[in-house]
Amino acid sequence: MEKGIEKVVMIGAGNVGTRLALALKNCGLEIIQVYSRSLDSAGMLARKLDCDPATDLKDLKAHADLYIVAISDDAIPEVAERFPYPEKLLVHTSGSTSMDVLEDAGARHGVFYPLQTFSKEVEVDFSQIPVCIEAAHEEDMAILKQLASRLTSRVYLVSSEERLLLHVAAVFACNFTNHMYAIAEDILTRYNLDFEMLRPLIRETARKAMHESPAGVQTGPAVRKNEKVMKKHLEILSALGGYQKIYNFISESIIDKSKPEKS
Amino acid sequence: MEKGIEKVVMIGAGNVGTRLALALKNCGLEIIQVYSRSLDSAGMLARKLDCDPATDLKDLKAHADLYIVAISDDAIPEVAERFPYPEKLLVHTSGSTSMDVLEDAGARHGVFYPLQTFSKEVEVDFSQIPVCIEAAHEEDMAILKQLASRLTSRVYLVSSEERLLLHVAAVFACNFTNHMYAIAEDILTRYNLDFEMLRPLIRETARKAMHESPAGVQTGPAVRKNEKVMKKHLEILSALGGYQKIYNFISESIIDKSKPEKS
Repeated sequence: MEKGIEKVVMIGAGNVGTRLALALKNCGLEIIQVYSRSLDSAGMLARKLDCDPATDLKDLKAHADLYIVAISDDAIPEVAERFPYPEKLLVHTSGSTSMDVLEDAGARHGVFYPLQTFSKEVEVDFSQIPVCIEAAHEEDMAILKQLASRLTSRVYLVSSEERLLLHVAAVFACNFTNHMYAIAEDILTRYNLDFEMLRPLIRETARKAMHESPAGVQTGPAVRKNEKVMKKHLEILSALGGYQKIYNFISESIIDKSKPEKS
Repeated sequence: MEKGIEKVVMIGAGNVGTRLALALKNCGLEIIQVYSRSLDSAGMLARKLDCDPATDLKDLKAHADLYIVAISDDAIPEVAERFPYPEKLLVHTSGSTSMDVLEDAGARHGVFYPLQTFSKEVEVDFSQIPVCIEAAHEEDMAILKQLASRLTSRVYLVSSEERLLLHVAAVFACNFTNHMYAIAEDILTRYNLDFEMLRPLIRETARKAMHESPAGVQTGPAVRKNEKVMKKHLEILSALGGYQKIYNFISESIIDKSKPEKS
């Protein structure tokens, strides 16, 4: 049996790299080096992990069991091309990038994608985070599965195609949702109303989705097809100088989705 | 000083009427009657409250201190017109309906609007729910304020205009957000992927909004203007037969909102 992962090099010191490296260290792994193009970023995370920073891929330490690439999607191919250890296991953490992009780096490559929104400064409980893994070789799949299981009880084997679907669904569930919050905040702020008033509603809306099917618990004027209320809302939005188009568009999508004859 | 509210008649037995009546009873108030056009609905809630149902407004009991109208917006004017006790305090619970709609019922009217999404079957902790009150007379405002304070620590005096703004903001923060969850669910379900995988992300996105300004913590390809990823998402959505328009539209709104020269 392959030995498990003990030593890790983190390539990237952004939101994902930071939270993932700290979580791995908490599980007893040794992060032996942090790479970032910026010495500031590499240094800041390396200090937290008590390891060495690097700013040149040529300086990557050779004795790690795993190299994790947690950088922007566009920068992954270049790192793959210049990765100096073709016999080593290299994974990226991107939802929207195919595993194949790491082929240039060597035969042992894969994906370790934690399905969560991360901020450098915000601590997260990794034990509840789904981690989607993929590997070019079965032995590496087993190694990654074992590693992921140390972090979380939710480990999924997911192909590159499925991961892209998860990623686009996550854009709706997270990024677009947050934009809805931001619009609500903007509307209230313009009228000196406190966004705090909406926070219990935001919490409850998310809480409902924890047990229910969201489509089944849709509420509001659109799903009730209450045109009078929608008209009032559009009038007030027009006085407010915006958001009518997005209001109309999403309302139509809700009405459309709630049709029983939906195909 | 006016005496506080002790006896309440609930006019309406839907989501808001049910949760509000049960919460008031829990605070020690006596719900003496439930009215609904449907005897089934009135009877079901009346049984939970251990009081009498009514299906005709002429049968409303005369000795309540407060009559709460928790029915669909469109039906409020008719109830106001036919309300038999012009000297009694009557309030509605609607976010998008002006207080004036109750003028026909009598001089003592107002609004008691709990800013939350309710389901008949789902228990809620009222102590965290903002309640927005308004009254035609100052004495009634004091009475409603005292009543609301028994339910929650978050009592706000809010005009009809402000309440409509809160309501439209709530549509974004709750109804539209839930629709984003529903789209994510639909995308995954079509490919036999488990919606459960997204729930930790939904929880974390809402949790972030509890302390942060949503506009300040926006993440994802749109705010990073990552056109390559957006193009990949649009391709997969097109193969999936839908949602490209809504993806494009919300992405544009995010890009637009994140412009520094935003007016």
